[in-house]
Amino acid sequence: MKTLVFIRHGQSKWNLENKFTGWTDVPLSEQGLTEAADAGRKLKDAGLTFDIVYTSLLKRAIKTAHIVMEEIDQLWLPEEKSWRLNERHYGALQGLNKAETAEQYGDEQVLLWRRSYDILPPLLADEDKRSSTKEAKYQHLDSHIIPRGESLKVTLERTLPYWEDHIAPSLLENKSVLVVAHGNSLRSLAKYLEDMTDEEILKFEIPTGKPLVYELKDDLSFSTKYYL
Amino acid sequence: MKTLVFIRHGQSKWNLENKFTGWTDVPLSEQGLTEAADAGRKLKDAGLTFDIVYTSLLKRAIKTAHIVMEEIDQLWLPEEKSWRLNERHYGALQGLNKAETAEQYGDEQVLLWRRSYDILPPLLADEDKRSSTKEAKYQHLDSHIIPRGESLKVTLERTLPYWEDHIAPSLLENKSVLVVAHGNSLRSLAKYLEDMTDEEILKFEIPTGKPLVYELKDDLSFSTKYYL
Repeated sequence: MKTLVFIRHGQSKWNLENKFTGWTDVPLSEQGLTEAADAGRKLKDAGLTFDIVYTSLLKRAIKTAHIVMEEIDQLWLPEEKSWRLNERHYGALQGLNKAETAEQYGDEQVLLWRRSYDILPPLLADEDKRSSTKEAKYQHLDSHIIPRGESLKVTLERTLPYWEDHIAPSLLENKSVLVVAHGNSLRSLAKYLEDMTDEEILKFEIPTGKPLVYELKDDLSFSTKYYL
Repeated sequence: MKTLVFIRHGQSKWNLENKFTGWTDVPLSEQGLTEAADAGRKLKDAGLTFDIVYTSLLKRAIKTAHIVMEEIDQLWLPEEKSWRLNERHYGALQGLNKAETAEQYGDEQVLLWRRSYDILPPLLADEDKRSSTKEAKYQHLDSHIIPRGESLKVTLERTLPYWEDHIAPSLLENKSVLVVAHGNSLRSLAKYLEDMTDEEILKFEIPTGKPLVYELKDDLSFSTKYYL
Protein backbone atom coordinates (compact mmCIF):
# COMPACT_ATOMS: atom_id res chain seq x y z
CA MET A 1 0.00 0.00 0.00
CA LYS A 2 1.12 3.53 -0.82
CA THR A 3 0.15 6.41 1.46
CA LEU A 4 -0.79 9.80 0.11
CA VAL A 5 -2.25 12.56 2.28
CA PHE A 6 -4.01 15.69 1.05
CA ILE A 7 -4.38 18.76 3.26
CA ARG A 8 -6.50 21.67 2.12
CA HIS A 9 -5.31 24.96 3.61
CA GLY A 10 -7.65 26.68 6.05
CA GLN A 11 -9.34 30.05 6.04
CA SER A 12 -7.57 32.90 4.26
CA LYS A 13 -8.17 36.61 4.80
CA TRP A 14 -10.25 36.74 1.63
CA ASN A 15 -12.44 33.80 2.67
CA LEU A 16 -13.27 36.00 5.64
CA GLU A 17 -14.17 38.87 3.30
CA ASN A 18 -16.17 36.49 1.05
CA LYS A 19 -14.11 37.26 -2.07
CA PHE A 20 -13.14 35.10 -5.03
CA THR A 21 -9.45 34.37 -4.45
CA GLY A 22 -7.97 31.98 -7.05
CA TRP A 23 -4.34 32.91 -7.72
CA THR A 24 -4.46 36.04 -5.55
CA ASP A 25 -1.73 35.45 -2.96
CA VAL A 26 -3.66 36.10 0.24
CA PRO A 27 -2.32 35.06 3.67
CA LEU A 28 -4.10 32.75 6.10
CA SER A 29 -6.41 34.32 8.68
CA GLU A 30 -5.94 33.59 12.39
CA GLN A 31 -8.48 30.80 12.02
CA GLY A 32 -6.51 29.44 9.04
CA LEU A 33 -3.35 29.28 11.15
CA THR A 34 -5.26 27.34 13.82
CA GLU A 35 -6.69 24.94 11.23
CA ALA A 36 -3.16 24.22 9.95
CA ALA A 37 -1.94 23.39 13.45
CA ASP A 38 -5.02 21.17 13.96
CA ALA A 39 -4.25 19.27 10.77
CA GLY A 40 -0.65 18.78 11.94
CA ARG A 41 -1.77 17.48 15.32
CA LYS A 42 -4.15 15.00 13.69
CA LEU A 43 -1.27 13.58 11.64
CA LYS A 44 0.89 13.44 14.75
CA ASP A 45 -1.81 11.66 16.76
CA ALA A 46 -2.21 9.15 13.93
CA GLY A 47 1.57 8.59 13.91
CA LEU A 48 1.86 9.50 10.22
CA THR A 49 5.21 10.71 8.92
CA PHE A 50 6.32 11.59 5.41
CA ASP A 51 9.25 11.49 3.01
CA ILE A 52 8.35 14.50 0.88
CA VAL A 53 5.94 17.44 0.82
CA TYR A 54 4.42 19.04 -2.27
CA THR A 55 2.74 22.41 -2.22
CA SER A 56 1.77 25.33 -4.46
CA LEU A 57 3.38 28.74 -5.00
CA LEU A 58 0.69 30.46 -2.91
CA LYS A 59 1.54 31.48 0.64
CA ARG A 60 -1.68 30.17 2.22
CA ALA A 61 -0.71 26.62 1.19
CA ILE A 62 3.04 27.00 1.89
CA LYS A 63 2.41 28.45 5.35
CA THR A 64 0.00 25.60 6.09
CA ALA A 65 2.67 23.10 4.97
CA HIS A 66 5.28 24.73 7.23
CA ILE A 67 2.97 24.68 10.25
CA VAL A 68 2.09 21.03 9.63
CA MET A 69 5.75 20.06 9.17
CA GLU A 70 6.67 21.80 12.40
CA GLU A 71 3.80 20.11 14.26
CA ILE A 72 4.89 16.61 13.14
CA ASP A 73 8.55 17.54 13.79
CA GLN A 74 9.52 17.07 10.16
CA LEU A 75 10.60 20.57 9.14
CA TRP A 76 13.59 18.87 7.46
CA LEU A 77 11.46 17.17 4.79
CA PRO A 78 12.19 18.01 1.16
CA GLU A 79 9.55 20.45 0.00
CA GLU A 80 8.68 21.02 -3.64
CA LYS A 81 6.51 23.93 -4.72
CA SER A 82 4.80 24.24 -8.06
CA TRP A 83 2.35 26.56 -9.80
CA ARG A 84 0.62 23.35 -10.98
CA LEU A 85 -0.77 22.84 -7.46
CA ASN A 86 -2.11 26.43 -7.26
CA GLU A 87 -5.80 27.02 -6.68
CA ARG A 88 -8.13 27.12 -9.69
CA HIS A 89 -7.62 30.51 -11.39
CA TYR A 90 -10.86 32.47 -11.01
CA GLY A 91 -10.25 34.87 -13.90
CA ALA A 92 -11.94 38.26 -13.79
CA LEU A 93 -13.88 37.19 -10.69
CA GLN A 94 -10.70 37.36 -8.57
CA GLY A 95 -11.06 40.03 -5.92
CA LEU A 96 -14.81 40.42 -6.36
CA ASN A 97 -17.15 39.92 -3.44
CA LYS A 98 -19.20 36.76 -3.95
CA ALA A 99 -22.48 38.30 -2.75
CA GLU A 100 -22.04 41.40 -4.93
CA THR A 101 -21.18 39.23 -7.92
CA ALA A 102 -24.38 37.24 -7.35
CA GLU A 103 -26.37 40.49 -7.27
CA GLN A 104 -24.79 41.61 -10.52
CA TYR A 105 -24.86 38.35 -12.51
CA GLY A 106 -27.58 36.41 -10.70
CA ASP A 107 -27.27 33.47 -8.33
CA GLU A 108 -27.61 30.93 -11.08
CA GLN A 109 -24.72 32.27 -13.13
CA VAL A 110 -22.46 32.46 -10.07
CA LEU A 111 -23.39 28.92 -9.06
CA LEU A 112 -22.50 27.80 -12.59
CA TRP A 113 -19.07 29.46 -12.35
CA ARG A 114 -18.47 28.03 -8.91
CA ARG A 115 -19.87 24.55 -9.22
CA SER A 116 -19.81 23.45 -12.84
CA TYR A 117 -17.05 21.18 -14.11
CA ASP A 118 -16.13 22.79 -17.40
CA ILE A 119 -17.54 26.33 -17.51
CA LEU A 120 -14.84 29.00 -17.53
CA PRO A 121 -15.17 32.16 -15.43
CA PRO A 122 -14.91 35.49 -17.32
CA LEU A 123 -11.24 35.69 -18.33
CA LEU A 124 -8.76 38.27 -17.05
CA ALA A 125 -7.44 40.68 -19.67
CA ASP A 126 -3.64 40.52 -20.13
CA GLU A 127 -3.30 44.13 -19.04
CA ASP A 128 -5.51 43.69 -15.96
CA LYS A 129 -3.53 44.58 -12.87
CA ARG A 130 -4.76 41.35 -11.28
CA SER A 131 -2.95 39.29 -13.94
CA SER A 132 -0.25 36.98 -12.56
CA THR A 133 2.06 37.27 -15.57
CA LYS A 134 4.24 39.96 -13.96
CA GLU A 135 4.63 38.27 -10.57
CA ALA A 136 8.20 37.27 -9.66
CA LYS A 137 7.12 33.78 -8.64
CA TYR A 138 6.01 32.96 -12.20
CA GLN A 139 8.97 34.42 -14.08
CA HIS A 140 10.44 30.95 -14.72
CA LEU A 141 7.35 30.11 -16.81
CA ASP A 142 6.47 30.81 -20.40
CA SER A 143 3.96 33.63 -19.81
CA HIS A 144 1.51 32.00 -22.24
CA ILE A 145 0.83 29.15 -19.84
CA ILE A 146 -0.19 31.45 -16.97
CA PRO A 147 -3.98 31.07 -16.77
CA ARG A 148 -6.41 33.94 -17.24
CA GLY A 149 -9.28 31.91 -15.81
CA GLU A 150 -9.90 28.19 -15.34
CA SER A 151 -12.73 25.71 -14.99
CA LEU A 152 -12.13 22.69 -12.75
CA LYS A 153 -11.54 20.70 -15.96
CA VAL A 154 -8.74 23.07 -17.03
CA THR A 155 -7.34 22.95 -13.48
CA LEU A 156 -7.08 19.16 -13.75
CA GLU A 157 -5.32 19.48 -17.10
CA ARG A 158 -2.48 21.36 -15.41
CA THR A 159 -2.37 19.47 -12.08
CA LEU A 160 -2.24 16.08 -13.82
CA PRO A 161 1.25 16.52 -15.35
CA TYR A 162 2.52 17.28 -11.83
CA TRP A 163 0.95 14.08 -10.55
CA GLU A 164 2.50 12.15 -13.42
CA ASP A 165 6.02 13.62 -13.20
CA HIS A 166 6.46 14.30 -9.47
CA ILE A 167 3.89 12.84 -7.07
CA ALA A 168 3.34 9.44 -8.71
CA PRO A 169 7.10 8.74 -9.12
CA SER A 170 7.64 9.49 -5.41
CA LEU A 171 4.86 7.06 -4.46
CA LEU A 172 6.30 4.43 -6.80
CA GLU A 173 9.62 4.83 -4.94
CA ASN A 174 7.65 3.93 -1.78
CA LYS A 175 7.79 7.44 -0.42
CA SER A 176 5.02 8.56 1.87
CA VAL A 177 3.70 11.76 0.31
CA LEU A 178 1.99 14.85 1.73
CA VAL A 179 0.30 17.32 -0.64
CA VAL A 180 -0.73 20.64 0.92
CA ALA A 181 -2.78 22.63 -1.55
CA HIS A 182 -6.16 24.14 -2.36
CA GLY A 183 -9.81 23.12 -2.52
CA ASN A 184 -9.91 22.83 -6.30
CA SER A 185 -6.38 21.67 -7.11
CA LEU A 186 -6.90 18.81 -4.63
CA ARG A 187 -10.41 18.07 -5.94
CA SER A 188 -9.02 17.79 -9.47
CA LEU A 189 -6.46 15.22 -8.32
CA ALA A 190 -9.12 13.38 -6.27
CA LYS A 191 -11.29 13.11 -9.41
CA TYR A 192 -8.41 11.52 -11.29
CA LEU A 193 -7.37 9.21 -8.43
CA GLU A 194 -10.89 7.97 -7.71
CA ASP A 195 -11.96 8.00 -11.33
CA MET A 196 -15.00 10.15 -10.49
CA THR A 197 -17.42 11.25 -13.21
CA ASP A 198 -17.82 14.94 -14.04
CA GLU A 199 -21.00 14.87 -11.93
CA GLU A 200 -19.49 13.06 -8.95
CA ILE A 201 -16.68 15.57 -8.51
CA LEU A 202 -19.21 18.41 -8.19
CA LYS A 203 -20.54 16.91 -4.97
CA PHE A 204 -17.10 16.17 -3.55
CA GLU A 205 -15.50 18.69 -1.23
CA ILE A 206 -12.44 18.31 1.05
CA PRO A 207 -12.91 20.02 4.43
CA THR A 208 -10.16 22.38 5.60
CA GLY A 209 -7.83 21.28 8.41
CA LYS A 210 -8.78 17.59 8.05
CA PRO A 211 -6.07 15.43 6.47
CA LEU A 212 -7.50 13.17 3.76
CA VAL A 213 -5.56 9.89 3.67
CA TYR A 214 -5.49 7.86 0.47
CA GLU A 215 -4.27 4.31 0.43
CA LEU A 216 -3.32 3.29 -3.08
CA LYS A 217 -2.45 -0.09 -4.55
CA ASP A 218 1.07 -0.74 -5.78
CA ASP A 219 0.07 0.39 -9.28
CA LEU A 220 -1.39 3.58 -7.69
CA SER A 221 -4.99 2.62 -8.31
CA PHE A 222 -7.42 3.67 -5.61
CA SER A 223 -7.91 1.36 -2.65
CA THR A 224 -9.47 3.34 0.20
CA LYS A 225 -9.60 6.80 1.76
CA TYR A 226 -10.44 8.26 5.15
CA TYR A 227 -10.24 11.54 7.02
CA LEU A 228 -8.23 12.04 10.18
CA MET B 1 28.34 40.88 -9.75
CA LYS B 2 26.78 37.86 -8.06
CA THR B 3 24.91 38.28 -4.78
CA LEU B 4 25.12 35.73 -2.00
CA VAL B 5 23.68 36.33 1.47
CA PHE B 6 24.48 34.34 4.60
CA ILE B 7 22.16 34.38 7.61
CA ARG B 8 23.21 32.68 10.83
CA HIS B 9 20.21 31.47 12.85
CA GLY B 10 19.60 33.19 16.17
CA GLN B 11 19.46 31.93 19.71
CA SER B 12 18.32 28.35 20.28
CA LYS B 13 16.98 26.88 23.51
CA TRP B 14 20.36 25.26 24.20
CA ASN B 15 22.28 28.51 23.66
CA LEU B 16 20.10 29.77 26.49
CA GLU B 17 21.12 26.79 28.63
CA ASN B 18 24.79 27.22 27.61
CA LYS B 19 25.08 23.70 26.14
CA PHE B 20 27.15 22.37 23.24
CA THR B 21 24.58 21.82 20.48
CA GLY B 22 26.13 20.68 17.17
CA TRP B 23 23.76 18.31 15.40
CA THR B 24 21.27 18.19 18.28
CA ASP B 25 18.01 19.38 16.73
CA VAL B 26 17.03 22.10 19.18
CA PRO B 27 14.34 24.71 18.38
CA LEU B 28 14.86 28.47 18.38
CA SER B 29 14.21 30.36 21.61
CA GLU B 30 11.80 33.32 21.65
CA GLN B 31 14.80 35.57 21.12
CA GLY B 32 15.89 33.41 18.19
CA LEU B 33 12.47 33.86 16.55
CA THR B 34 12.80 37.62 16.97
CA GLU B 35 16.31 37.61 15.50
CA ALA B 36 15.01 35.73 12.44
CA ALA B 37 12.27 38.32 11.87
CA ASP B 38 14.87 41.10 12.31
CA ALA B 39 17.10 39.53 9.67
CA GLY B 40 14.13 39.32 7.31
CA ARG B 41 13.22 42.96 7.87
CA LYS B 42 16.79 44.05 7.15
CA LEU B 43 16.70 42.26 3.80
CA LYS B 44 13.32 43.81 3.07
CA ASP B 45 14.53 47.32 3.95
CA ALA B 46 17.54 46.79 1.69
CA GLY B 47 15.21 45.68 -1.12
CA LEU B 48 17.02 42.35 -1.51
CA THR B 49 15.14 39.44 -3.07
CA PHE B 50 16.28 35.94 -3.96
CA ASP B 51 15.88 33.14 -6.45
CA ILE B 52 16.70 30.20 -4.18
CA VAL B 53 17.24 29.42 -0.49
CA TYR B 54 19.64 26.81 0.91
CA THR B 55 19.47 25.59 4.48
CA SER B 56 20.45 22.67 6.71
CA LEU B 57 18.41 19.74 8.06
CA LEU B 58 18.24 21.33 11.53
CA LYS B 59 15.03 23.03 12.59
CA ARG B 60 16.68 26.15 14.02
CA ALA B 61 18.02 27.01 10.56
CA ILE B 62 14.92 25.91 8.63
CA LYS B 63 12.61 27.87 10.91
CA THR B 64 14.83 30.94 10.51
CA ALA B 65 14.68 30.51 6.73
CA HIS B 66 10.88 30.27 6.80
CA ILE B 67 10.52 33.39 8.95
CA VAL B 68 12.91 35.33 6.68
CA MET B 69 11.09 34.14 3.53
CA GLU B 70 7.76 35.20 5.00
CA GLU B 71 9.15 38.59 6.02
CA ILE B 72 10.44 39.34 2.50
CA ASP B 73 7.20 37.92 1.00
CA GLN B 74 9.05 35.14 -0.83
CA LEU B 75 7.64 32.00 0.81
CA TRP B 76 7.34 30.60 -2.72
CA LEU B 77 11.12 30.41 -3.25
CA PRO B 78 12.61 26.99 -3.97
CA GLU B 79 14.20 25.77 -0.75
CA GLU B 80 16.89 23.09 -0.64
CA LYS B 81 17.93 21.47 2.61
CA SER B 82 21.11 19.48 3.14
CA TRP B 83 22.99 17.81 5.99
CA ARG B 84 26.10 19.41 4.45
CA LEU B 85 24.99 22.81 5.78
CA ASN B 86 24.41 21.45 9.30
CA GLU B 87 26.31 22.93 12.23
CA ARG B 88 29.75 21.53 13.06
CA HIS B 89 29.22 18.20 14.84
CA TYR B 90 30.40 18.58 18.43
CA GLY B 91 30.93 14.88 19.13
CA ALA B 92 30.70 13.71 22.71
CA LEU B 93 30.45 17.31 23.90
CA GLN B 94 26.90 17.57 22.51
CA GLY B 95 24.43 18.16 25.32
CA LEU B 96 27.09 19.04 27.89
CA ASN B 97 26.99 22.34 29.69
CA LYS B 98 29.90 24.53 28.56
CA ALA B 99 30.76 25.79 32.06
CA GLU B 100 30.67 22.27 33.54
CA THR B 101 32.82 20.97 30.69
CA ALA B 102 35.36 23.71 31.40
CA GLU B 103 35.43 22.70 35.08
CA GLN B 104 36.00 19.09 34.12
CA TYR B 105 38.53 19.48 31.30
CA GLY B 106 39.96 22.93 32.04
CA ASP B 107 39.36 26.21 30.24
CA GLU B 108 42.30 25.76 27.93
CA GLN B 109 41.14 22.39 26.58
CA VAL B 110 37.62 23.69 26.02
CA LEU B 111 38.95 26.76 24.25
CA LEU B 112 41.01 24.47 22.03
CA TRP B 113 37.93 22.42 21.13
CA ARG B 114 35.87 25.52 20.51
CA ARG B 115 38.31 27.77 18.77
CA SER B 116 41.02 25.71 17.06
CA TYR B 117 40.81 25.02 13.35
CA ASP B 118 41.68 21.35 13.15
CA ILE B 119 41.36 19.80 16.63
CA LEU B 120 38.54 17.27 16.88
CA PRO B 121 36.24 17.15 19.90
CA PRO B 122 36.01 13.79 21.73
CA LEU B 123 34.10 11.54 19.30
CA LEU B 124 30.64 10.09 19.93
CA ALA B 125 30.52 6.32 20.24
CA ASP B 126 28.31 4.63 17.61
CA GLU B 127 26.02 3.28 20.29
CA ASP B 128 25.73 6.63 22.10
CA LYS B 129 22.07 7.64 22.22
CA ARG B 130 23.12 11.10 21.02
CA SER B 131 24.37 9.62 17.73
CA SER B 132 22.55 10.91 14.63
CA THR B 133 22.79 7.65 12.67
CA LYS B 134 19.28 6.51 13.64
CA GLU B 135 17.51 9.81 12.95
CA ALA B 136 14.90 9.68 10.17
CA LYS B 137 16.29 12.81 8.54
CA TYR B 138 19.62 11.07 7.79
CA GLN B 139 18.27 7.73 6.54
CA HIS B 140 18.99 8.68 2.93
CA LEU B 141 22.73 8.80 3.76
CA ASP B 142 25.35 6.08 3.99
CA SER B 143 25.58 5.87 7.79
CA HIS B 144 29.40 5.94 7.59
CA ILE B 145 29.40 9.58 6.49
CA ILE B 146 27.40 10.77 9.50
CA PRO B 147 29.96 12.56 11.66
CA ARG B 148 30.82 11.50 15.21
CA GLY B 149 32.63 14.78 15.88
CA GLU B 150 34.13 17.46 13.64
CA SER B 151 36.76 20.18 13.69
CA LEU B 152 36.08 23.32 11.64
CA LYS B 153 38.45 21.85 9.04
CA VAL B 154 36.36 18.67 8.74
CA THR B 155 33.20 20.81 8.60
CA LEU B 156 34.65 22.66 5.60
CA GLU B 157 35.46 19.35 3.91
CA ARG B 158 31.75 18.46 3.90
CA THR B 159 30.28 21.93 3.22
CA LEU B 160 32.58 22.52 0.24
CA PRO B 161 31.03 19.82 -2.01
CA TYR B 162 27.66 21.50 -1.43
CA TRP B 163 29.11 24.83 -2.49
CA GLU B 164 30.61 23.23 -5.57
CA ASP B 165 27.55 21.22 -6.67
CA HIS B 166 24.62 23.42 -5.57
CA ILE B 167 25.38 26.97 -4.44
CA ALA B 168 28.08 27.88 -6.98
CA PRO B 169 26.08 26.56 -9.98
CA SER B 170 23.08 28.66 -8.89
CA LEU B 171 25.27 31.79 -8.68
CA LEU B 172 26.76 31.00 -12.08
CA GLU B 173 23.19 30.88 -13.46
CA ASN B 174 22.86 34.45 -12.12
CA LYS B 175 20.58 33.44 -9.31
CA SER B 176 20.56 35.54 -6.18
CA VAL B 177 21.24 33.09 -3.36
CA LEU B 178 20.31 33.04 0.33
CA VAL B 179 22.03 30.55 2.66
CA VAL B 180 20.49 30.22 6.13
CA ALA B 181 22.67 28.05 8.30
CA HIS B 182 24.89 27.87 11.37
CA GLY B 183 27.86 29.71 12.90
CA ASN B 184 30.42 27.14 11.84
CA SER B 185 29.00 25.86 8.57
CA LEU B 186 28.84 29.49 7.39
CA ARG B 187 32.33 30.27 8.75
CA SER B 188 33.73 27.32 6.83
CA LEU B 189 32.25 28.64 3.58
CA ALA B 190 33.43 32.16 4.41
CA LYS B 191 36.99 30.85 4.85
CA TYR B 192 36.83 29.27 1.41
CA LEU B 193 35.19 32.28 -0.27
CA GLU B 194 37.57 34.84 1.21
CA ASP B 195 40.58 32.56 1.07
CA MET B 196 41.30 33.12 4.77
CA THR B 197 44.23 31.42 6.48
CA ASP B 198 43.64 28.87 9.25
CA GLU B 199 44.48 31.67 11.72
CA GLU B 200 42.26 34.31 10.12
CA ILE B 201 39.13 32.16 10.29
CA LEU B 202 39.54 31.74 14.06
CA LYS B 203 38.98 35.47 14.58
CA PHE B 204 36.03 35.62 12.18
CA GLU B 205 32.52 35.31 13.55
CA ILE B 206 29.16 36.04 11.88
CA PRO B 207 26.67 37.74 14.23
CA THR B 208 23.18 36.22 14.50
CA GLY B 209 20.25 38.03 12.87
CA LYS B 210 22.52 40.20 10.68
CA PRO B 211 22.52 39.24 7.00
CA LEU B 212 26.07 39.06 5.59
CA VAL B 213 26.05 40.12 1.94
CA TYR B 214 28.80 38.88 -0.36
CA GLU B 215 29.34 40.38 -3.74
CA LEU B 216 31.31 38.01 -5.94
CA LYS B 217 32.92 38.51 -9.33
CA ASP B 218 31.59 36.64 -12.33
CA ASP B 219 34.06 33.80 -11.68
CA LEU B 220 32.80 33.73 -8.05
CA SER B 221 36.00 35.19 -6.62
CA PHE B 222 35.52 37.48 -3.66
CA SER B 223 34.85 41.15 -4.35
CA THR B 224 33.35 42.72 -1.22
CA LYS B 225 31.14 41.98 1.78
CA TYR B 226 29.00 43.96 4.19
CA TYR B 227 26.44 43.40 6.91
CA LEU B 228 22.89 44.70 6.76
